[in-house]
Amino acid sequence: MPGSIFGEAFRVTTFGESHGKAVGAVVEGVTSGLPLCEADIQKDLDRRRPGQSDVTSPRKESDTVQILSGVFEGKATGTPVALLIWNSDQQPSAYDPIRDVFRPGHADYTYQKKYGIRDHRGSGRASGRETAARVAAGAIARKMLAQKGIEIRAYTLQVGDIRAARLDYAAIDENPARCPDPEAAARMVELIRQAAAEHDSVGGIVECRASGVPAGLGEPVFDKLDADLAKAMLSLGAVKGIEFGAGFAAATMRGSRHNDPITPTGFASNHAGGILGGISSGADIVFRIVVKPTSSIAKEQRTIDTSGRETTVRAEGRHDPCICPRIVPVVEAMAALVLADHLKRQAATEV
Amino acid sequence: MPGSIFGEAFRVTTFGESHGKAVGAVVEGVTSGLPLCEADIQKDLDRRRPGQSDVTSPRKESDTVQILSGVFEGKATGTPVALLIWNSDQQPSAYDPIRDVFRPGHADYTYQKKYGIRDHRGSGRASGRETAARVAAGAIARKMLAQKGIEIRAYTLQVGDIRAARLDYAAIDENPARCPDPEAAARMVELIRQAAAEHDSVGGIVECRASGVPAGLGEPVFDKLDADLAKAMLSLGAVKGIEFGAGFAAATMRGSRHNDPITPTGFASNHAGGILGGISSGADIVFRIVVKPTSSIAKEQRTIDTSGRETTVRAEGRHDPCICPRIVPVVEAMAALVLADHLKRQAATEV
Amino acid sequence: MPGSIFGEAFRVTTFGESHGKAVGAVVEGVTSGLPLCEADIQKDLDRRRPGQSDVTSPRKESDTVQILSGVFEGKATGTPVALLIWNSDQQPSAYDPIRDVFRPGHADYTYQKKYGIRDHRGSGRASGRETAARVAAGAIARKMLAQKGIEIRAYTLQVGDIRAARLDYAAIDENPARCPDPEAAARMVELIRQAAAEHDSVGGIVECRASGVPAGLGEPVFDKLDADLAKAMLSLGAVKGIEFGAGFAAATMRGSRHNDPITPTGFASNHAGGILGGISSGADIVFRIVVKPTSSIAKEQRTIDTSGRETTVRAEGRHDPCICPRIVPVVEAMAALVLADHLKRQAATEV
Amino acid sequence: MPGSIFGEAFRVTTFGESHGKAVGAVVEGVTSGLPLCEADIQKDLDRRRPGQSDVTSPRKESDTVQILSGVFEGKATGTPVALLIWNSDQQPSAYDPIRDVFRPGHADYTYQKKYGIRDHRGSGRASGRETAARVAAGAIARKMLAQKGIEIRAYTLQVGDIRAARLDYAAIDENPARCPDPEAAARMVELIRQAAAEHDSVGGIVECRASGVPAGLGEPVFDKLDADLAKAMLSLGAVKGIEFGAGFAAATMRGSRHNDPITPTGFASNHAGGILGGISSGADIVFRIVVKPTSSIAKEQRTIDTSGRETTVRAEGRHDPCICPRIVPVVEAMAALVLADHLKRQAATEV
Repeated sequence: MPGSIFGEAFRVTTFGESHGKAVGAVVEGVTSGLPLCEADIQKDLDRRRPGQSDVTSPRKESDTVQILSGVFEGKATGTPVALLIWNSDQQPSAYDPIRDVFRPGHADYTYQKKYGIRDHRGSGRASGRETAARVAAGAIARKMLAQKGIEIRAYTLQVGDIRAARLDYAAIDENPARCPDPEAAARMVELIRQAAAEHDSVGGIVECRASGVPAGLGEPVFDKLDADLAKAMLSLGAVKGIEFGAGFAAATMRGSRHNDPITPTGFASNHAGGILGGISSGADIVFRIVVKPTSSIAKEQRTIDTSGRETTVRAEGRHDPCICPRIVPVVEAMAALVLADHLKRQAATEV
Repeated sequence: MPGSIFGEAFRVTTFGESHGKAVGAVVEGVTSGLPLCEADIQKDLDRRRPGQSDVTSPRKESDTVQILSGVFEGKATGTPVALLIWNSDQQPSAYDPIRDVFRPGHADYTYQKKYGIRDHRGSGRASGRETAARVAAGAIARKMLAQKGIEIRAYTLQVGDIRAARLDYAAIDENPARCPDPEAAARMVELIRQAAAEHDSVGGIVECRASGVPAGLGEPVFDKLDADLAKAMLSLGAVKGIEFGAGFAAATMRGSRHNDPITPTGFASNHAGGILGGISSGADIVFRIVVKPTSSIAKEQRTIDTSGRETTVRAEGRHDPCICPRIVPVVEAMAALVLADHLKRQAATEV
Repeated sequence: MPGSIFGEAFRVTTFGESHGKAVGAVVEGVTSGLPLCEADIQKDLDRRRPGQSDVTSPRKESDTVQILSGVFEGKATGTPVALLIWNSDQQPSAYDPIRDVFRPGHADYTYQKKYGIRDHRGSGRASGRETAARVAAGAIARKMLAQKGIEIRAYTLQVGDIRAARLDYAAIDENPARCPDPEAAARMVELIRQAAAEHDSVGGIVECRASGVPAGLGEPVFDKLDADLAKAMLSLGAVKGIEFGAGFAAATMRGSRHNDPITPTGFASNHAGGILGGISSGADIVFRIVVKPTSSIAKEQRTIDTSGRETTVRAEGRHDPCICPRIVPVVEAMAALVLADHLKRQAATEV
Repeated sequence: MPGSIFGEAFRVTTFGESHGKAVGAVVEGVTSGLPLCEADIQKDLDRRRPGQSDVTSPRKESDTVQILSGVFEGKATGTPVALLIWNSDQQPSAYDPIRDVFRPGHADYTYQKKYGIRDHRGSGRASGRETAARVAAGAIARKMLAQKGIEIRAYTLQVGDIRAARLDYAAIDENPARCPDPEAAARMVELIRQAAAEHDSVGGIVECRASGVPAGLGEPVFDKLDADLAKAMLSLGAVKGIEFGAGFAAATMRGSRHNDPITPTGFASNHAGGILGGISSGADIVFRIVVKPTSSIAKEQRTIDTSGRETTVRAEGRHDPCICPRIVPVVEAMAALVLADHLKRQAATEV
């Protein structure tokens, strides 16, 4: 009932606040015998880590992960794998000015209403830092999926009104925007720098593709594969929407166009985004999420304090002026958690 | 693990196929003492029922609901409320031609891959008819919510490229498109008729607004209110995307614009769609879903049969040329299920 | 969170009150392709049905089950199987005298405290009648398990102080006590008749054995196989205790005696009851439950009414003077639900 | 689906192996505002810790708990509370002799069958050490319950054939047996020493009483309060049975005796153990569990190795010759987790 557990057969519990002692995850359902070590996980964490370029937060976190359990002599034993990442570069005093003020676009106000209390330091549990635990857990899922031939790639498709025009996987990690179109990437980085210079932030769109997913994953009727992917993505604080395949463009399409013809060698198009009736079809799974512009900006904004009085606030902490580049590995992680879960669920279905 | 249960504290189990004996739901968590009778539920079912106009399926279903349990002397007792709707106008033989053929855009192919067997009659469990059970369950949730001052309204915002320009709640049920803008509604109906005449179908966008939702609903971090609403909506077969508040438009917005200023009397705008950090803020919850054009069309389409051979197919059954009008009450029902669930979860959080 | 769902991968939702319209179950996780018809289920229901002998309740219920969904052309499709049993021999007016009185040993008082309202007719949801739905669902589980070579048998081991001295499976259904020792059975029946004649009831012990269970079922650490079996059994209103293998006798045993030696051909004894560390060992699973004497007795008893005033009450309805014979098929059903669930869960573990 | 999560509204995830780096728990549902610090938890851990007397394992573990999250300025924030206990006195090499041998009465064999791999060091996840995490989590639940006036006490009722004759709460923590009867306690300690001297172990019975539990907790029909308590207790590796109130003695009782008369001032007896129809009645909740004699004994025993060949084994590690004294705080912790969970679930029921 509380909300820090995700998945059923492959299941993750996370904990931790931005400026508490640590963030971490307990991962259940890791297949026994899977070779697993900290380096497998660190690799993905390093892609999410702050301070990778001048368009991300300068917070210095090594984000070093420790495996506390569930691995013996280099292999998963089938018992829970606990992952721990200590917070090292906390600067809680940087948040003193917002102790009694609600920042617009943030969870400050809603946490206070929900719990009657909040850890105001760097958004506490609502911080993007919480996603480090997801990336760590997702790295294990990705390793399991890779052994089944399933690969997941996410990338920045759009920043502001600049949209990638081509898809070159090799280019993604070669530019700070994590955009698969190097030319668009350069313009995106420029736009992000400009927003930052104006003490502002900018939104964008991230696309994700999973290939090698066998047909048959997803549970009718509520736990459809797209329903669970949608939940996974909307559980990320900055994500305000998701669309599969043709997505919102389907509103203006005819059925004769949207329906993907089936041929002996597969689907002739992929407007469905690889999911029909909530079950994977074997075609690539394709979805896009919209990432809102970072709420924390250094510009002055109208708000109220905890007593309800009018005031203004400007964010003083260290923030990403565009969330897209750093959310890319998080999106991959969450997609991996969903697919690993449904892969295991399907095994239960079949027996 | 199988997928026919939705919710945690307010929880619904559904069953039934399009051309089986019945569809139904078991609803748990109905607050004891709630006045409840079949008319409360029938009202919502009647809005979903086929055959209400010339732009919906001509299937004749009275969709009469029976309460089998959980109500005693006109009041809910707190035990499960079982709801049963017999299927009366089955025409399974109409589906004989697709017994061995996969219809494009349908779940035929994926169910076969998942289960190795399928009930081909009218899409079986994947049929839109399954949503009658959701509407019945949702009617109970809506009644509970109404007692707390929470109201939910959905409506057709767009069909093809025709978009409503104004929001008049009173107009919604006065036109077959269920559009809050009577003028746009007339053009929508015309467009739907035209698509049908061409043996084709058309997509659209449905918007939903919930008012009176108290601040504090939603469970960080995975069971965010928007995450659960997204899952609820994407669990509807025809829905291919969802966006909250400003939605995909946030991609091109700056943070200084997207952030909703907080004032002593509430939020000065609602780009967040009433949810911050996954928790309701007290502002109206606003989201939009994209509804794909109906997959079942009378136009001939390329496909394969169950042996993998090329063939063509045209849908012979009775179908809606646009799903928007009839999905409106389903969207309201699913939103009600989510809100009733989180209302109860919040009570557990507070104790 | 409400409590009418059992299991995870093989999952059952039940509904219905003793004197409402019907009782029933929705069964998820039925393996697609399983041959299934109403006769498969009716067989088990007939063993639970009242009126089978002079030592059971004379209520006349045909307990005819209808399958409403999830089966197509004689085979399970993988979608939820809804099972419906109409209540036919309701005599609600027989319960008018207890409308405002709490019967000792019953759930009358606690339902009133929990819900502030109750369906007093025949104990409503707390009635043993509710178990008809469990038996129906369990029959499907048993059929699935039988295909894997797993058999479950329960029987009356003890009534009052009369204990079976031998275990002859063939004898169980040949006597009204459902005791595997015909000689003890005769004395048990005599004791039950005597208790009934004295307007009283008598308790007993039921033993259950499952053979053919593969090693490896059960999930450490909380969802141990014995933990889930214990929950299943204690979820039966009349059951007040459970013990596995040597059970309570282990209190006076030494470790050197209780430990079952392992040999190349299996365990040399079975004090563990077939479960080690919460996981099945491949040996027979053996447990015993204690069944309290029926609470409903015709003898006058001290109690209070709903206003808190002292009064007396005697049960007027139709009741079993000993619950053991009729609980036997219910115990088998619940054990089957647990084993089917864990069989599927283990498949998910392995993938 | 994997089994390391317990509870729904108050929910605990545990991790860790006996000779891995650490054991720990993530606790969700802690009421925001609850004053909480490490000392609150340490107190209970110290009661479970090994090495407290000559009748417990001499393993030296400080069992110092760290709170990693969910607490801010001395109060719970409502977000997950992560608890970490480092393993300090590991002696994994002590287990080398059993690397390829299955110890009778242990989970060695079943883990190997389930996972195809096992961490043989001190039973890995199946070790009693895992319960440190439960005690830590339970301490938080107990603090929450204490604020509602609910107190839980467990104690050793019986060791071998020595049974406590009186119940003096003050005596419990004054003797190494944790027995509420000082005279019986002395004989119990003597019996345990004698078993240890003979390289053997001895079983017993622990009783638990919860007072101050309001009427109304427990969810019909599967999540009955006694069903969930039974699951909680049987999830402890050494527990082989449970009984509520009169328990197994009910087999030989008449209904007229077992039924507890209800009076204006409460129940006149407590054969039901405080639970009727699965719902708390307001009377004390009383149950007993049987604790098997410790499986690890220094006596030679017959077994097989991982290749299936006959061999013998004797336990070389550090073990408790009787588990009762140390399981007492674990029983209290598990009971607290169940009650805290149902207290929160009832709040959701009522809203």
